[in-house]
Amino acid sequence: MNDGYSGLPNARIRAANGVDYAYRDTGGEGAVPLVLLQHFRGNLDNWDPALIDALATARRVVTFDNAGVGGSTGTTPDTIEQMARDAIAFIAAIGFSQADLLGFSIGSFVAQQITLTRPAIVRRLVLASAAPQGAPGMHGWAPEVIGAIGTPNTSPEAYLDVFFTRSASSRPAGAEALRRMYARTEDRDTATTWATREAQYDAICAWGIPDHALLQRLTAIGVPVFVANGDSDPMILPRYSYLLAGLIPDARVKIYPDSAHGFLFQHHAEFAADVRAFLTGAS
Amino acid sequence: MNDGYSGLPNARIRAANGVDYAYRDTGGEGAVPLVLLQHFRGNLDNWDPALIDALATARRVVTFDNAGVGGSTGTTPDTIEQMARDAIAFIAAIGFSQADLLGFSIGSFVAQQITLTRPAIVRRLVLASAAPQGAPGMHGWAPEVIGAIGTPNTSPEAYLDVFFTRSASSRPAGAEALRRMYARTEDRDTATTWATREAQYDAICAWGIPDHALLQRLTAIGVPVFVANGDSDPMILPRYSYLLAGLIPDARVKIYPDSAHGFLFQHHAEFAADVRAFLTGAS
Repeated sequence: MNDGYSGLPNARIRAANGVDYAYRDTGGEGAVPLVLLQHFRGNLDNWDPALIDALATARRVVTFDNAGVGGSTGTTPDTIEQMARDAIAFIAAIGFSQADLLGFSIGSFVAQQITLTRPAIVRRLVLASAAPQGAPGMHGWAPEVIGAIGTPNTSPEAYLDVFFTRSASSRPAGAEALRRMYARTEDRDTATTWATREAQYDAICAWGIPDHALLQRLTAIGVPVFVANGDSDPMILPRYSYLLAGLIPDARVKIYPDSAHGFLFQHHAEFAADVRAFLTGAS
Repeated sequence: MNDGYSGLPNARIRAANGVDYAYRDTGGEGAVPLVLLQHFRGNLDNWDPALIDALATARRVVTFDNAGVGGSTGTTPDTIEQMARDAIAFIAAIGFSQADLLGFSIGSFVAQQITLTRPAIVRRLVLASAAPQGAPGMHGWAPEVIGAIGTPNTSPEAYLDVFFTRSASSRPAGAEALRRMYARTEDRDTATTWATREAQYDAICAWGIPDHALLQRLTAIGVPVFVANGDSDPMILPRYSYLLAGLIPDARVKIYPDSAHGFLFQHHAEFAADVRAFLTGAS
């Protein structure tokens, strides 16, 4: 039975750093594989299967839990730099000498850092709901955002408030995305812990300490980059996508209408088509 | 007879700095007046009358030659800072305590500087084909651009190469814009001089000396800003519009399709509608 991402087994692989990483692998040959880096508090089950399946039509796609997250062993570090090292260790363990990266939210921070720390392994980079280190106004999420998705027990309603807008098209799309994420009933990933939440949020706040000089790091990103966000993202404002596109030498940017932090789930078909076009060099 | 911008007289006004400024004034009451700042080597006749007429349907629009340019007396300075002072002197002379500014190309540099030097007189700001001071890769125009429009005697073909694309829709739109600009046969403005060209290009090169720290100036622009450019501008790349929109706290950005440096002439109806919406606070 082939039911796409929802039916993939949870695989495990031990890396040189001693961490056993949980991951899912769509398989497939040909193109350079695409490795996905997940959002704040997310695990393997927090990727919308509709997005992964759309991306996987043309290439091998791998999702994984970084060190200390979900089903992976180890400890969630409190810096983006260490998260990047941990992700590099996973990519080495799975045997990819080069990969395309798609980083979402905090995953976009890690993806930028990987590209700066180990540029040789990154072929092309997709930054979704992203912001650069040091940008003004990014010191932690807005109160209504951390109040919604930073609590010990979050609700579907709180998730929808951040990842989708309140419009008649976005909100139902959010309910559909949640339904797809929860359709898998067996072999679900281990829930992320409060320790992961605390460490990740420390890393997010540190990344957001305003420092204009650090923005210049972006000029060292030498690979082609596709920057994307929803026009109404309350967690990471679209202005940071413009900032990334303005400073990364080879970047293109797209802002998706009537959507928020989860624009890539809401617009999964369009976004996957845009990513495929970008990764094949057609855009 | 009312034939719009093409029929406006060349007015003159002496400012406190002793310069007699040439200008054209559409008149009109109500809204805050809109003052336009012209491109490299341009004078009053280099505004597309179709754009001015579209902007003037809803407000008073004033074009002028800055000090030393075209029909104005004085000397063209070789710094954006002094051009801003000279423009502020004109705005004071014409009696505007506050104005909206639309800066185009080098005029966008001057408009940014005015907003930083004398924020009290700027209500809202439109930056067309714009870039911030210090941006990497902006040290003078590209060789093919300065080779086309930086020569002692420029041709319509060279103008079209920079201001319009070679597409089947853009190029004819450029010919139409030129036809409108040259329809006025009497009382044309004085041509800009080689001394103006040299001073302006010195100012452009100085503005473009890469200096990451200077980008932070943008965070001090406190007024609402509309940033716009053509998607294929060879003179000032669209990435600088994203950079402006990423660092100015209250900015929105629009990139117009299949157009170059002269996107605002090519898309005059759409751009004027977007400017009107922005200036009235509807966007």
